[in-house]
Amino acid sequence: MPSLKLALVQLAVGAQKAANLARARSKVLEAAKAGANIVVLPECFNSPYGTQYFGQYAEEIDSAKPSPSIQALSDMARDSKVYLVGGSIPELEKSTGDLFNTCTVWSPEGQMVAKHRKLHLFDIDFPGKIVFKESEVLKPGNTLTDFSTPWGKFGVAICYDMRFPEVAMIAARRGCVGMIYPGAFNQTTGPLHWELLLRARAVDNQIFTAACSP
Amino acid sequence: MPSLKLALVQLAVGAQKAANLARARSKVLEAAKAGANIVVLPECFNSPYGTQYFGQYAEEIDSAKPSPSIQALSDMARDSKVYLVGGSIPELEKSTGDLFNTCTVWSPEGQMVAKHRKLHLFDIDFPGKIVFKESEVLKPGNTLTDFSTPWGKFGVAICYDMRFPEVAMIAARRGCVGMIYPGAFNQTTGPLHWELLLRARAVDNQIFTAACSP
Repeated sequence: MPSLKLALVQLAVGAQKAANLARARSKVLEAAKAGANIVVLPECFNSPYGTQYFGQYAEEIDSAKPSPSIQALSDMARDSKVYLVGGSIPELEKSTGDLFNTCTVWSPEGQMVAKHRKLHLFDIDFPGKIVFKESEVLKPGNTLTDFSTPWGKFGVAICYDMRFPEVAMIAARRGCVGMIYPGAFNQTTGPLHWELLLRARAVDNQIFTAACSP
Repeated sequence: MPSLKLALVQLAVGAQKAANLARARSKVLEAAKAGANIVVLPECFNSPYGTQYFGQYAEEIDSAKPSPSIQALSDMARDSKVYLVGGSIPELEKSTGDLFNTCTVWSPEGQMVAKHRKLHLFDIDFPGKIVFKESEVLKPGNTLTDFSTPWGKFGVAICYDMRFPEVAMIAARRGCVGMIYPGAFNQTTGPLHWELLLRARAVDNQIFTAACSP
């Protein structure tokens, strides 16, 4: 593999979508200027992370009629000439009204080269600590996702997908050299799982792993 | 699961087989006295760990004609009334002349209830640090192993078997509540892998894991 520089944009995310998109753009351009070839945004980078927000911030993902976040991602990939793993956004599937938590990946020409719908929705109930059920409003995806670059093929999955070893195992056996996980890890189970799971996926499958939370 | 106490005997192993067996016996009895229900010895507990020793220290494993280490293991399990995961010994398969690295498991009545031949032989070549090839003298086993106790079923595998996630994954899917790995980890790759792999196997499969090195 030729030398590769990958940047993780640990973006702070607020309530204003336009501000989130503008901040993401400036950080992607900054990373590209510093020599990054692949840039990764965190999960839910255009919206606060919460079941009450997903519907309100959701966009259709349609390259022919790009919505604000989709247009912004395409522009920042093209203008910075990087492969952009565009974190995730709440996606509205118009034909059914379903919502997904979806990562899009962009080429340096600004073309969408992959789309991953989070497979494993994050439902947690730690009494007195954290209660959260993505499954109340989201539907899960049902496909594994990878994309090709001059440095090899990379698998993409989102946050809690990392908890399930098969995702990385299958990617590696399909020839991926790395897994990239946009995430938004919580502070209850996150500290126990984040580094452990990323290192385990790397060692078990002899691949690189990268993950990016806000 | 009712409460269970499991003891790991991190036994120092020397060149005298009789002394190794005697030391193992005293430590197993000590663990039982302290309330242990399952006691685990390390890999190659009756012999120095090295390809030049395996043939010399090897024994047949035949309950009808117990060799010194097999008799000693049966006696210490029965006399201490514990389930004993008897680390491993170099095993001679007389019919073929093959050598294996083999773990035997014993009931509190002194009966052999499981036998595991190490599946993944440890070959390593870190220039200037460690060179070791089990495959020069050993043959690999070809079966997965578990045994039942009043606390549930436990999978057993040996040392480098831990490096391969499928072993624990299959055990968990067969209903095991834990994996027990006698080992003899080295100090080059060991510090990077020991805790990482044990924690990963536990989290990924939602089982307990235990491992015991000299």
